[in-house]
Amino acid sequence: MIIVGELINASRKSVKAAIEAQDSLMIQNIADSQAASGASYIDVNAGVFVEKEKEYLNWCIDNVIEVTDLPVCIDSSNGAAIESALAHFQEKSNAVPMINSISLEKKQMDQLLPLISGTDLKIVALCMSDDGMPKTVEERLSVAEQLVNVLVQNNVKIENIYIDPLVQAISTDFSLGNAFLVTIEEITSRYEGIHTMCGLSNISYGMPNRKYLNRTFMSMAIARGLDGAIVNPLDQQMMATITSANTLAGKDEFCRNYLKAYRAGKLDE
Amino acid sequence: MIIVGELINASRKSVKAAIEAQDSLMIQNIADSQAASGASYIDVNAGVFVEKEKEYLNWCIDNVIEVTDLPVCIDSSNGAAIESALAHFQEKSNAVPMINSISLEKKQMDQLLPLISGTDLKIVALCMSDDGMPKTVEERLSVAEQLVNVLVQNNVKIENIYIDPLVQAISTDFSLGNAFLVTIEEITSRYEGIHTMCGLSNISYGMPNRKYLNRTFMSMAIARGLDGAIVNPLDQQMMATITSANTLAGKDEFCRNYLKAYRAGKLDE
Repeated sequence: MIIVGELINASRKSVKAAIEAQDSLMIQNIADSQAASGASYIDVNAGVFVEKEKEYLNWCIDNVIEVTDLPVCIDSSNGAAIESALAHFQEKSNAVPMINSISLEKKQMDQLLPLISGTDLKIVALCMSDDGMPKTVEERLSVAEQLVNVLVQNNVKIENIYIDPLVQAISTDFSLGNAFLVTIEEITSRYEGIHTMCGLSNISYGMPNRKYLNRTFMSMAIARGLDGAIVNPLDQQMMATITSANTLAGKDEFCRNYLKAYRAGKLDE
Repeated sequence: MIIVGELINASRKSVKAAIEAQDSLMIQNIADSQAASGASYIDVNAGVFVEKEKEYLNWCIDNVIEVTDLPVCIDSSNGAAIESALAHFQEKSNAVPMINSISLEKKQMDQLLPLISGTDLKIVALCMSDDGMPKTVEERLSVAEQLVNVLVQNNVKIENIYIDPLVQAISTDFSLGNAFLVTIEEITSRYEGIHTMCGLSNISYGMPNRKYLNRTFMSMAIARGLDGAIVNPLDQQMMATITSANTLAGKDEFCRNYLKAYRAGKLDE
């Protein structure tokens, strides 16, 4: 299971302030604590600083590299910022970063394809197109298929693709949770070796007891094949859910990870 | 989702003592509190009293009927005890009871088939045969198929069948959780209208933090189609998991049950 630590995101007020103040220590602490809590990638997002996105993204990357050997997940909707951040990271680290994200939107696809073609980069591919967000399972699977085709045709290995079918709120339509689960399972079974990935907190938007719903939905998605998540690794209950669900799904040989997490006190309720 | 309240079971020491002392009030309290907590059926099991099973089963049924209109789930491996309990319940109640359980074991099948053939009784059908408990998914599905065939050929409606694929401990083989989940999904998709059911606490046998594993596994099984469970309805966290997972699986129109449970304080962590 791939865990992308989501906390270094300038859309969070405290992170925005830390970046503006160039408070390296704070960003390094966030990176370090996410690494210690089980993150596989450290997401960096400076999208709120339109003008200074490139500069701040690179500064965040410098701070991540300072404290951990983990790869970053470069999170931007701006192709030029991704290109610059990618070059900056690769100058300083041998780890293979993740790009978050590509979609069928033409402008973004045109910018990113040359960057990722033939590389070993990990690519988050959102089920979204210039027509917006697909509504039905069939529309989602159709967008996923087009994404897989265009990426594979451009020499991106299937095992480096992380499809994100986009979670939508059950408060707007109570069938959207199931639609997401079906999509995860279909993608997992259609394309051997592919991965799926999501940030799933949208599922509970507008509902009470959100954290509880989010954790329950995480275990349900893992039951259907989800093998990547963009989460807060410091949320111990969410991480315990992920560890447990992976073990119960038969992905934890001899239950070793579960028992290790238990002995480390990470499963305490 | 069908919830069978499991607490009136003489294999529990306190219940055994209450039955021996003919403490009606205690049995009635257990029945009443399970009904109030969302049970759809009240399980009654007096199997530990080999000689007196019939008598005590009937006495338990009398006490259940005293406090709730819910149907009982007659839980025994003794065909004669089931027959007597069924007649006893039906004399006093119009509710349609559940029989727990039939399997492919010849002796039990011969005893129970005449009782249930052509009736509207709900039947828990265990994936077990005279060869013992099946090990692989294929063996389980083969036993399930034989069970469905023999029941349907004997005029049991498919929608009255609750297949229990039998949960086995991941501590003995870490792939058994996934085998169970796959079986649930296969059965649900192969036989339209059929139900699945289980008591799933065996999954965590020999592991630490059992309650947590049990809840996580419940949400995973619901994600794969499970629509019945034999549980302790007084376990508020388990019931909250079931409510949430059903809502997230799209089985709760307009999220009404979730919001109702929330307003009733049943989702508090």
